[in-house]
Amino acid sequence: MPDTSSYTPSERTVPTRSRERASYDRELVHALLDEGYVCHLGFVRDGAPVVLPTLYGRIGDRLYVHGSTGSRPLRMAGQSDPGLAVCLTVTHVDGLVLARSAFHHSINYRSVVVHGIAHEVVDEEERRTALDALVDHVVPGRSCDSRPANAKELAATAVIRLDLEEVSAKVRTGGPNDEPEDASLPHWTGVVPLVRGYGAPIPADGLDPAVALPDYLTTL
Amino acid sequence: MPDTSSYTPSERTVPTRSRERASYDRELVHALLDEGYVCHLGFVRDGAPVVLPTLYGRIGDRLYVHGSTGSRPLRMAGQSDPGLAVCLTVTHVDGLVLARSAFHHSINYRSVVVHGIAHEVVDEEERRTALDALVDHVVPGRSCDSRPANAKELAATAVIRLDLEEVSAKVRTGGPNDEPEDASLPHWTGVVPLVRGYGAPIPADGLDPAVALPDYLTTL
Repeated sequence: MPDTSSYTPSERTVPTRSRERASYDRELVHALLDEGYVCHLGFVRDGAPVVLPTLYGRIGDRLYVHGSTGSRPLRMAGQSDPGLAVCLTVTHVDGLVLARSAFHHSINYRSVVVHGIAHEVVDEEERRTALDALVDHVVPGRSCDSRPANAKELAATAVIRLDLEEVSAKVRTGGPNDEPEDASLPHWTGVVPLVRGYGAPIPADGLDPAVALPDYLTTL
Repeated sequence: MPDTSSYTPSERTVPTRSRERASYDRELVHALLDEGYVCHLGFVRDGAPVVLPTLYGRIGDRLYVHGSTGSRPLRMAGQSDPGLAVCLTVTHVDGLVLARSAFHHSINYRSVVVHGIAHEVVDEEERRTALDALVDHVVPGRSCDSRPANAKELAATAVIRLDLEEVSAKVRTGGPNDEPEDASLPHWTGVVPLVRGYGAPIPADGLDPAVALPDYLTTL
């Protein structure tokens, strides 16, 4: 049986530096992707790079991105054969790393970089499943508690798929890596953690007060 | 006198959709850049896009990115003439937008996209100023309270510059945009704010307890 616990490193997914921070562990990659809300999708247009923030969803080893049928990357993926070369990156910033030396200042972060070819999804069943995954990525459980897309909305929406094959994670944790000879310098050194959380949900104008806050929001 | 309060829109910085969310206001662009820690830097390598998270600093209308002299984009910027075509994007995710319809689910966000040519900085004075800006971007005031880079560290560090010329911000705020005919559906609708903050600073192992937490960290 092939080893499915890790992705296979490629020339593009082995970093030129800080190799000890790289990981190909499938479980870690999936967890980092599921924790994010927005990815940065890169593609090439007229020879120049374009990087746009966008929502995404994951089903197994497949990522989905959606948008208006008029949006550039989605149109380009649908019109290109065999698809659109993309790089999709998700990054979590966890802390500010203050070293005694300016040189060793850093950031604690966890990121995933996916290289591949994005294809337009045309199968209606896969499109619906992907759109549910996109909604459930924003709030798990939400796709069952909202009106599904109607024919007009589906026709206005393009979905592209990117398989997780050429993918790596990169993680920096822990304190600063100061030079031993800097140990007695009089500068504070350590990590300032960045914390994320949720504020109190804000009901939309006009929401019927009889509609209670759903459980999946109280346990976020 | 030319109007310096806004950047001039270009074909690349006018979005194909949601144009009402786009802004070219210089003050807004600078504020969004200064609020971020990590940008996503896109460039083209062997015809394919690459998107990497990295630190950045800003001085006026100039962005700086640094890294090891061995890192790919920095090496490419130094070796290419007239420089390396890049797209640098910074995104803040502010809230989850839950509509009654799956279609109108969204994210409240504020992003900046910069297109341009990155040039290697070779002037030593500009390199030092840029490195200070990079450290001060992590924690304002920190560059004065750390050991400056020495000759060896400077030699190992490449700095690239990207001018803010072709740049736009995009902002989504507020509640969901549900269809009027969905108003009576029984689904909770509104916004779940995402909040960011700082945890208590964690001193590095071996920090002399006599070194107090600096003021610029207590007021973060």
